[in-house]
Amino acid sequence: MDFSIPDDLQALKGRVGAFIRDEIIPCENDPRQSPHGPSDAFRRELNARARAAGLLAPHMPAGLGGLGLDHRGKAVVFEAAGYSLLGPLALNIAAPDEGNMHLLEQVADERQKRRWLAPLAMAETRSCFAMTEPSPGAGADPSALLTRYRKVAGGYVVSGTKWLISGATGAAFCIIMARDEASPEGEPKATMFLADMDRPGIVIERTLDTIDQSFPGGHCVVSFHDLFVPEEDVLGREGEGFRYAQVRLAPARLTHCMRWLGAAQRAHDVATAYARQRRAFGRALIDHEGVGFQLADNELDLHTCRLVVAHTAWVLDRGGKGRHESSMAKVICSEAIWRIVDRSLQVLGGLGTTGDTVVERIFREVRPFRIYDGPSEVHRWSIARKLAREAVQ
Amino acid sequence: MDFSIPDDLQALKGRVGAFIRDEIIPCENDPRQSPHGPSDAFRRELNARARAAGLLAPHMPAGLGGLGLDHRGKAVVFEAAGYSLLGPLALNIAAPDEGNMHLLEQVADERQKRRWLAPLAMAETRSCFAMTEPSPGAGADPSALLTRYRKVAGGYVVSGTKWLISGATGAAFCIIMARDEASPEGEPKATMFLADMDRPGIVIERTLDTIDQSFPGGHCVVSFHDLFVPEEDVLGREGEGFRYAQVRLAPARLTHCMRWLGAAQRAHDVATAYARQRRAFGRALIDHEGVGFQLADNELDLHTCRLVVAHTAWVLDRGGKGRHESSMAKVICSEAIWRIVDRSLQVLGGLGTTGDTVVERIFREVRPFRIYDGPSEVHRWSIARKLAREAVQ
Amino acid sequence: MDFSIPDDLQALKGRVGAFIRDEIIPCENDPRQSPHGPSDAFRRELNARARAAGLLAPHMPAGLGGLGLDHRGKAVVFEAAGYSLLGPLALNIAAPDEGNMHLLEQVADERQKRRWLAPLAMAETRSCFAMTEPSPGAGADPSALLTRYRKVAGGYVVSGTKWLISGATGAAFCIIMARDEASPEGEPKATMFLADMDRPGIVIERTLDTIDQSFPGGHCVVSFHDLFVPEEDVLGREGEGFRYAQVRLAPARLTHCMRWLGAAQRAHDVATAYARQRRAFGRALIDHEGVGFQLADNELDLHTCRLVVAHTAWVLDRGGKGRHESSMAKVICSEAIWRIVDRSLQVLGGLGTTGDTVVERIFREVRPFRIYDGPSEVHRWSIARKLAREAVQ
Amino acid sequence: MDFSIPDDLQALKGRVGAFIRDEIIPCENDPRQSPHGPSDAFRRELNARARAAGLLAPHMPAGLGGLGLDHRGKAVVFEAAGYSLLGPLALNIAAPDEGNMHLLEQVADERQKRRWLAPLAMAETRSCFAMTEPSPGAGADPSALLTRYRKVAGGYVVSGTKWLISGATGAAFCIIMARDEASPEGEPKATMFLADMDRPGIVIERTLDTIDQSFPGGHCVVSFHDLFVPEEDVLGREGEGFRYAQVRLAPARLTHCMRWLGAAQRAHDVATAYARQRRAFGRALIDHEGVGFQLADNELDLHTCRLVVAHTAWVLDRGGKGRHESSMAKVICSEAIWRIVDRSLQVLGGLGTTGDTVVERIFREVRPFRIYDGPSEVHRWSIARKLAREAVQ
Repeated sequence: MDFSIPDDLQALKGRVGAFIRDEIIPCENDPRQSPHGPSDAFRRELNARARAAGLLAPHMPAGLGGLGLDHRGKAVVFEAAGYSLLGPLALNIAAPDEGNMHLLEQVADERQKRRWLAPLAMAETRSCFAMTEPSPGAGADPSALLTRYRKVAGGYVVSGTKWLISGATGAAFCIIMARDEASPEGEPKATMFLADMDRPGIVIERTLDTIDQSFPGGHCVVSFHDLFVPEEDVLGREGEGFRYAQVRLAPARLTHCMRWLGAAQRAHDVATAYARQRRAFGRALIDHEGVGFQLADNELDLHTCRLVVAHTAWVLDRGGKGRHESSMAKVICSEAIWRIVDRSLQVLGGLGTTGDTVVERIFREVRPFRIYDGPSEVHRWSIARKLAREAVQ
Repeated sequence: MDFSIPDDLQALKGRVGAFIRDEIIPCENDPRQSPHGPSDAFRRELNARARAAGLLAPHMPAGLGGLGLDHRGKAVVFEAAGYSLLGPLALNIAAPDEGNMHLLEQVADERQKRRWLAPLAMAETRSCFAMTEPSPGAGADPSALLTRYRKVAGGYVVSGTKWLISGATGAAFCIIMARDEASPEGEPKATMFLADMDRPGIVIERTLDTIDQSFPGGHCVVSFHDLFVPEEDVLGREGEGFRYAQVRLAPARLTHCMRWLGAAQRAHDVATAYARQRRAFGRALIDHEGVGFQLADNELDLHTCRLVVAHTAWVLDRGGKGRHESSMAKVICSEAIWRIVDRSLQVLGGLGTTGDTVVERIFREVRPFRIYDGPSEVHRWSIARKLAREAVQ
Repeated sequence: MDFSIPDDLQALKGRVGAFIRDEIIPCENDPRQSPHGPSDAFRRELNARARAAGLLAPHMPAGLGGLGLDHRGKAVVFEAAGYSLLGPLALNIAAPDEGNMHLLEQVADERQKRRWLAPLAMAETRSCFAMTEPSPGAGADPSALLTRYRKVAGGYVVSGTKWLISGATGAAFCIIMARDEASPEGEPKATMFLADMDRPGIVIERTLDTIDQSFPGGHCVVSFHDLFVPEEDVLGREGEGFRYAQVRLAPARLTHCMRWLGAAQRAHDVATAYARQRRAFGRALIDHEGVGFQLADNELDLHTCRLVVAHTAWVLDRGGKGRHESSMAKVICSEAIWRIVDRSLQVLGGLGTTGDTVVERIFREVRPFRIYDGPSEVHRWSIARKLAREAVQ
Repeated sequence: MDFSIPDDLQALKGRVGAFIRDEIIPCENDPRQSPHGPSDAFRRELNARARAAGLLAPHMPAGLGGLGLDHRGKAVVFEAAGYSLLGPLALNIAAPDEGNMHLLEQVADERQKRRWLAPLAMAETRSCFAMTEPSPGAGADPSALLTRYRKVAGGYVVSGTKWLISGATGAAFCIIMARDEASPEGEPKATMFLADMDRPGIVIERTLDTIDQSFPGGHCVVSFHDLFVPEEDVLGREGEGFRYAQVRLAPARLTHCMRWLGAAQRAHDVATAYARQRRAFGRALIDHEGVGFQLADNELDLHTCRLVVAHTAWVLDRGGKGRHESSMAKVICSEAIWRIVDRSLQVLGGLGTTGDTVVERIFREVRPFRIYDGPSEVHRWSIARKLAREAVQ
């Protein structure tokens, strides 16, 4: 057991930290941001800064322009990037692109990688991932999948409606999860397809208003009307959709934890700085235990999250699937991070309810994290189910 | 001990409930709303509906066009109105006007009532209350008051800066809290002044971006530059500012509890309806204990809040000042209501993070309630201080 | 809505409070107490004191020697009695006797009342209630009832094993819940029987070691070996067992809340007195917010419990069954009281872990309350089920 | 970052686990245990078993008969031992002896080690540590130290009263913390003394009744009446008492976390086994989310504790003082472990309140852990104070 961070990673962490502080945080109030996220021009500008700093796509292999970080390396770097809500976007390690890159790297064939992964890794394009469906379709329960496909000459025809498709507007391509329409009710056979977003039959119905507003392209309702997908654009193999979803999911959950941990640290730092300087009832706020204990609890939660993330990253680096570990990490981190941000806002008092600090923004941005990639309830359920079936220690 | 609601009040509750359902909820997506609240035209239209329904300003005496509700009556009616975020505005029982009406009724002289209270009660005007100051001024600790006044011939001259002044833009007048500049450090002598907002020397510096967006006029930074206030526009008596703040505060806190309780009930009802209809893993969401228990906890919290509010209302109706009781009610309700709304959003899953239901909006609107009118920490501190000084039972 | 306590009840509360303080608390360390409760001699001595004070069985009608308190009256008096763990025993309002008296009063015939209720109300006897069974029998789920009966000439023969039968050792009689052995699996038809404990076929197998130790007679495993019960000793009517269980349960749950609320107030008072006097780091403990906020939270929880109990009592006094209300009261109070006692122990620090104050004892005694009369989980489940079936408001 | 357990340590963990399961758990109901702990004969028998298994004092260097475990090794082995409440006693790694051994190893001179440490490490003797004092003396705030000493010819004379001195009855010797009576109020100069318990002037006043009952020798009140301590029995150097207290404290806190983590795992395993087998309302308890989620939360808490303990152990192994890390570990683990045990008892329902499983016992034993070695409030305060003084990241 060794918790030390290697020197080169420590140095990289320092570089990322400085980059965020000096180049990204000053851009946070750039007007090229709307309720549906940063504009593409702004996004490209941020990517250019990261590229210039040698920090673009650090999770990608060198061949794709990255630094080849392993999961433990990501844990350190993604947290540092997450210190600004714009940091992950700048480094091209934000969801859903980061998860899509991982999935393509693991599953796509060489032609697909050249066509879709390479430009994505270089931040020349963006992408989206079309899995979630409105009620009564697939939400937390993937077996309810309604988007369907059928085999036709030379390929497949896909139909259905997805929603909460992050980044759809402006994305170059989409990974679509659909079920074989012939597969039995409740036990769908699923397949993933790759499709450029300008293909006929793909319609962005609307962009949802959401509590979080930092995804470029927003969260959209996307429908597929007899979308034809040629055979060679099946991602991996037909019928392996659920398996690939797991390939994407465990690490994707964990990178969310990493990035949000940086945001939580930021909220905590803002609140701490305020509590040290603001006085009430004869002393600094932080010297009131009612405030100081909240900040102490933040420290405890930050410490815990960092350990849990590092541990799961280690499991993945050793080749483990990490389903159980990433499930635990997701619940622990999403709930602890929420508490941290909520306390930070509370410590700031009236100021915390305004846009005068970044905490109010983080507060809104992070709330969905307790829901997406499996709400806490689904993870607790799967942890309990594991207990129900396993031999007791 | 009797918890029954008198028949006439029950009937009024029914009328308000129907009015909110039939006339206000259908307006909730009216486009005349911005991040800084509903437009004045929209506000007047809502008031006209309430006036036509005989429900405008039900807390005011008949002489001022109201129904003369006592605090227990308000508990029932304000909750029913709060079922829509626009309901309190429609009935002219929203903060800060409602608290200002109460204060004026208790403290203003007849001339002041005619000039400022009567049109406010009729919803012909809006008002604001200028107490809170940016750091290092008066926030939770009123003794830090920095806005100052000095006596001059025929009146007073007031200078200073306030912030988070809800509804300032568009308000007809302001109640200003300031300290005698000659009073000693840390023990200010405070006075309240009435001033029309178009008086020279009153400047709205900016409207803050805030997590809540339903106050008409937003939350503003307002400064007073040598504002002259004639002697007759002192509210009540010089030097009684802190006492009047208490007159306003205890009931104002409680009416917040009432209104937000209605909003919490709404969020809970939306979540419950969804959980009954949405299925996952083979049954309705509500039949999963992980969901059903959250809704059960909502029921427990709603029940508790209702009892605590009714009790404090009864204390006030008997003539008690209710400082301790309203302090307890503020902490209990603001935290319980927060939990209810947070759980409701969680139960809705992805849908909860979108504007497709009203819950996301309520979630943002209600967060500041744990902070304004005294953050939980200040109330706990004052409850503990009372324990520290009193004889043990 | 009126929260005032009538003068005569207020006076009675004062008398009970003084009695507990002057006559019962001084007995708390009487050596005639074992891990299986106070001795019968000690119990009779306590009853004699209450009798002399005119406070014995105040919940019974005058005809049975009581004061005829309604449920709201009980709320006030039982809490005052609960201020000592021995108080309810002294007043003859402790479980299980108090619940049994209520049940007999509602359901027994005149002969049964003379024979079993009258001496019980006078504290000449004790009783027990045999419903709970060890796994796989009836615990939280009454439909799992395994103790069975069959009709024979002149009566019934009952066989089975019960456990956690409070007060069995030394009880004069028992109320036994059993199923018709002919009734279908999972839908038992149940009946209650009255039987003197010295009847052949009743065996007390053992007294359990339990975390709580203040029940006279302890908690026992009791088995029935072909126990013959004559027809006239059926309680009420055959086949009505589950209905009678509800008659007993809702008020019995509530009287638990009342008594434990008194114990929680005691723990809180002990902790508060200590926190006012003990100093650390330069000031009284209570002036540390980390301590003061815990005591403030106790105040909030005590306040809430009192309101919830009073409300449910009012529902019962109006003739309501109060199933839902008593279910809510049970969860709210058992969890709030637990928090109060846990915080009180924590505030006392090392002292709290010792028998030098009564708090350590209360801590152990009250823990089972989150389990018996329906664990929190079962109540939340039934509240959720109600929500699932009802029309949304 | 590497979370793997070396093979030899893994093997040792297995051996300890088997030893606890096969040799210690079967002894748990041995009658030679009283409310003031196991008898000395029973304790020696347990030690003999561990000695025979080659597992006695594994934390001691080989020269003292141990296995020379580092802190990370202890984390693994002590948790395995803690799986039985008797395990740490058997292995001679229980408090207070284990902490005293560590302190003596770090601070004592060679003569003192031969005389006091060697027989202690071999489990030939027991020891106690006399620091805590009754109000108004030193509890959580060591500066309130009242036990005093003065220099006399050839040594020192110590006077004062200590309480909650674990294991005092039957201990061979004591480490006494006292203040130079000449040192200023509020800034005591403190020294540690070694003294055999049979020295004139040492009186065990009484053994306290406490909620935990597994310390051999119980928790005692001990007074020193002009106890003469020769110069050579000063532990380390005069005036270094507070520094040595820290030397003892950080690792001692952490070993508590390790041992209690084993006990928490045990409670969780018992509850899980029960929840898998006990049925209610048509399915196994564990298949009710209301139960399964509690067990899932246990898993999350166990996972977190294990990581936090391992991390702090690593800090200590690298030579860090680990004050901050052990402070965080103490709060996180004592509160998480408490939740685990409380949930386990709740899941067991009525059975959990009885001595029929070990959970009820663990529940009582572990409660003081949130208080001793610094209550949570003191640790949160010191974490907050660190935040108040440090540069923000």
